[in-house]
Amino acid sequence: MQYSSKLLELLVDEFAKLPGIGRKSALRMAFYILRRPAEEVLPLSTAIRDVKEKVTECTTCGNISEEPVCLICRDPRRRRDVICVVENPVDVVAIERTSTYRGLYHVLGGAISPLDGVGPDDLRVASLVTRAGEEEVEEVIVATSAASQGEATAHYVADVLRPTGVRVSRIARGIPMGSDLEFADSVTLQKALEGRRLLT
Amino acid sequence: MQYSSKLLELLVDEFAKLPGIGRKSALRMAFYILRRPAEEVLPLSTAIRDVKEKVTECTTCGNISEEPVCLICRDPRRRRDVICVVENPVDVVAIERTSTYRGLYHVLGGAISPLDGVGPDDLRVASLVTRAGEEEVEEVIVATSAASQGEATAHYVADVLRPTGVRVSRIARGIPMGSDLEFADSVTLQKALEGRRLLT
Repeated sequence: MQYSSKLLELLVDEFAKLPGIGRKSALRMAFYILRRPAEEVLPLSTAIRDVKEKVTECTTCGNISEEPVCLICRDPRRRRDVICVVENPVDVVAIERTSTYRGLYHVLGGAISPLDGVGPDDLRVASLVTRAGEEEVEEVIVATSAASQGEATAHYVADVLRPTGVRVSRIARGIPMGSDLEFADSVTLQKALEGRRLLT
Repeated sequence: MQYSSKLLELLVDEFAKLPGIGRKSALRMAFYILRRPAEEVLPLSTAIRDVKEKVTECTTCGNISEEPVCLICRDPRRRRDVICVVENPVDVVAIERTSTYRGLYHVLGGAISPLDGVGPDDLRVASLVTRAGEEEVEEVIVATSAASQGEATAHYVADVLRPTGVRVSRIARGIPMGSDLEFADSVTLQKALEGRRLLT
C-alpha cells in the first residue's frame, strides 16, 4: 500500500487514531476532506484547535466550558433547586440527551478509587458542599455510575452533604428498558425488586 | 439536549458532517479530542489544514500530490512499463490495497458522462496518450469502473491509444470472491462466462 501524497497518508493516520475509526473509514474521511471545498472542512480543523486551546472547566459545576461559568449554569431557564452530581462531562451529555432533566449539574471529575490513587480530595466535593448549602437548593441527585466505585462515591457524597440538610437522592437501578429478566444479573434484579413502585 | 460549551458543540457538529459519522460517534470523537493531550490531537487539525492548502495534482499522472510529481511516479521501485488508468484517486488506493500491482497509474479525473456534461476533453486523456507513447511503456491497463460510464470511457481510451501501438487491456469482470452465483446479475454472469480461464 503506497500513497501518492505524504500529507494524505498523515491525515489518514490521524483520523484512524479516533475511537471506533478503522483505516477504511479514516480513508473515506480523508478523501471527504480532499474533495469538499475548504470553507466546508476547515471549520473542523479550527474546532479541534479551539477545543484544545480554549476549553477549560466551569468554576461553578466543573463541567466543560470556555467561559468562567458554563452555558448550563448560566441558563436562566434551568431549575436552580436541584443539582445532579455526575462523575464526568460525558455523563452530563447522556442525561441531557434524555431531554427530561432541567436542573443544574455538578461534575466531580471522577469517582473515588483507592486502587487508582483517587481519593475524595481529588474530586470536586468541597464546592459541591458549598453549592448544596445554598438556600435555593432543595435536592441533590447522585448520578454516579452503578459500578462499585460510583456506589462508594455516592455514599461518600451523601455523608458529606448530610450536615447541609439538603435532600440527597440516588438514581434508580433496575432492569434496562427492553431487556428480558433472564438476562439481568442477580444484583440488578435484587435492586429492581427493592426499588419497586406501585402501579396506580 | 444542551451543551455546557459552545466550542464542544461546534466540534460535535463538524465531526458529524464526516461521511458515516452520526451524532453519537461525533460526540465520542469530540470527547476524545477533549481528553487526550494537545500534542496527540492537534496533528489532526494540522493535517486537515495541510491537505486542503498544500495538496494538488501530480503533473505526470494526475493523482493527489503536494509535490509537482507524486510519490508513486517518483518511486524507483515501481515498474515503468505498465500504466493503470483509473477514474479517480480513490481507485488508486483500492488497487494499492491489493499490494499486487507494482506499475504506475494515470488518473483521468472522472469518466465520460454526456448527461453530466463530462466529455473526453474534461479528462486527462491527452497526457495519457503522450505517456503511453513513450518507449518504456508496454501495456496500459484500463481500470475504469464496470458501470456504463466507465465502460464508455474504457472504449474511448482504447481508441485513442491505438495509434501508439501500446498493448491495452481491461480488468476482468466476473463474480466477486465469496459471492454466490444466484446473487449475481445476469450481465455479470455473462461476463464471467466470457472471461472464463482454463483450470490447468
